[in-house]
Amino acid sequence: MNKNYKVVGIGNAIVDVLAKCSDEFLISKGIKKGIMQLIDTPRAAEIYNSMNAGVEVSGGSAANTIAGIGTVGIKTAFVGKVKDDQLGRIFAHDIRAQGADFTTPMVDSESIDETGRSMILVSPDGERSMNTYLGVANQLNVEDIDPDLMADTEWLYLEGYLFDRPDSQAAFIRAVELCNGSGGQSSLSLSDPFCVERHREAFQDLIANHINMLFCNEHELLSMYGGESLNDAIEIGAQFVDTLVCTAGAEGAYIANGGEIIHVPANSVNMVDATGAGDLFAAGFLAGVSQNKSLEVCGMMGCIAAAEVISSMGARPQTNLQELFDINKL
Amino acid sequence: MNKNYKVVGIGNAIVDVLAKCSDEFLISKGIKKGIMQLIDTPRAAEIYNSMNAGVEVSGGSAANTIAGIGTVGIKTAFVGKVKDDQLGRIFAHDIRAQGADFTTPMVDSESIDETGRSMILVSPDGERSMNTYLGVANQLNVEDIDPDLMADTEWLYLEGYLFDRPDSQAAFIRAVELCNGSGGQSSLSLSDPFCVERHREAFQDLIANHINMLFCNEHELLSMYGGESLNDAIEIGAQFVDTLVCTAGAEGAYIANGGEIIHVPANSVNMVDATGAGDLFAAGFLAGVSQNKSLEVCGMMGCIAAAEVISSMGARPQTNLQELFDINKL
Repeated sequence: MNKNYKVVGIGNAIVDVLAKCSDEFLISKGIKKGIMQLIDTPRAAEIYNSMNAGVEVSGGSAANTIAGIGTVGIKTAFVGKVKDDQLGRIFAHDIRAQGADFTTPMVDSESIDETGRSMILVSPDGERSMNTYLGVANQLNVEDIDPDLMADTEWLYLEGYLFDRPDSQAAFIRAVELCNGSGGQSSLSLSDPFCVERHREAFQDLIANHINMLFCNEHELLSMYGGESLNDAIEIGAQFVDTLVCTAGAEGAYIANGGEIIHVPANSVNMVDATGAGDLFAAGFLAGVSQNKSLEVCGMMGCIAAAEVISSMGARPQTNLQELFDINKL
Repeated sequence: MNKNYKVVGIGNAIVDVLAKCSDEFLISKGIKKGIMQLIDTPRAAEIYNSMNAGVEVSGGSAANTIAGIGTVGIKTAFVGKVKDDQLGRIFAHDIRAQGADFTTPMVDSESIDETGRSMILVSPDGERSMNTYLGVANQLNVEDIDPDLMADTEWLYLEGYLFDRPDSQAAFIRAVELCNGSGGQSSLSLSDPFCVERHREAFQDLIANHINMLFCNEHELLSMYGGESLNDAIEIGAQFVDTLVCTAGAEGAYIANGGEIIHVPANSVNMVDATGAGDLFAAGFLAGVSQNKSLEVCGMMGCIAAAEVISSMGARPQTNLQELFDINKL
């Protein structure tokens, strides 16, 4: 294959607002721990006005993955919707600074909605509870899918969160058809167990018909395909996709391909903030895929990238991932 | 004294944009290392477009100090100018979340200038080179000084950077007259050796006539009063102010008062990012002053707070400083 882009991500363009909080704060505000919850403008104001001082960092699940791959020097692009406001310009700057092309038209500065943001509350155990106001990230639609870009892409990487809106689902289908129709392949991240619950059938259709590689964690996989155990769920899921990549927290990751299941152990790390673990696992894995590594090595690269991101606040790597891969001789 | 506010800071309201960079980047862009340089809008765009992905954190020298004191649970307020834009709302949220009252009227969202920001480039040695676009921070003037607040303040804390604009100088004088005239006292930070060079005479007048406590580092003090050695400069400076507090990097701090000079050693720390060291030293020191500690203990509290902030990225403490003071039995 001789395409210009190794990996192109499509997802919610989000700026994260990270702050530490106590468990009591989560309870008093009725915030569910460890998951992503969509919130509206009044709820966003309610949480923001009572939370600690924050740190703003570009985020978004697929965008984090693309930024991570970009640090390796692999040619990437990101497709997602920001407004032409201060946070939107920060998002655009940051993803470009990490090597990705980003050409999705911005929403006009006169629009009422703002660039999306997620208030990520990190409790003392390092778990992150995400409260996401989507803003204009919501407005991504079929017209934002550039056919030339899709035709020039080896691997598409789709963020499951975008299934929360029919227009975005339509954009997904269009992107996958264009990419796969030009000899590319498509991957999908399930994003969140509750996202799977909301859209199980639509996901199953997309996976069975268009997806070559599926990224998920154990909770998402069990929610998607059921099964008595994680092993069951992996065996069921593997029937629907060429490669199934399932992370399992401290257990590391399982990769199912061609009837085999490979286990890769997690790297031990002092967890400061779990934000971005799955996103950066996918970044490391896809970096390996782009460099034609074996699936086992791809899994090890995923674990290394995930370990890097959870050892500091925020969901974007602070280091060039290639340096970490080199240190580990991968 | 029975005033509502222990410490009120007046300074530039700034959001920091922190990113790592190489020494080569500083050289290629003509950025002077280790100091604050004021930049205009085109220069801001030039630097931003070529720098790494950033992290946005509320900053501003006096604002950092006030935020630090706020974490101790001491009643504070901040006076400074932001616009009613996304970064301005972030600044306002963060300083309030750290306990300070902040009631300076925002500049209308229709204004062309934006909330001020400083691109802080952190080189591998941990030194920070600040490129500050003041934006509306510049517009602070006499009308923003609330007489009721000034009369209700025990210690005023003035940021030397504000001397870069005559309107702000006038606001300073007004604030000091109101505070001292109601039985309060005033302190000043010299901010930066180049700031001292630009405004030496105006600073000397202000100090001699109105300032009870002066914060500076060795470079600023030598620039202000000359002298063959730091010791000389301290002895000269001490003639013009009740209490002179001079930090000296790894040497710690010197406090001159009533003809005596007290030395406080620095706390050893793994420096990640020097941003905010002086600001947080002042926070720890003034927290001690507010709690009626001896000047030596105030100095130790300053060193502890400075050590905390330089061990992570950004200029605001990640920890409640009172917990650190308690651990050290201060």
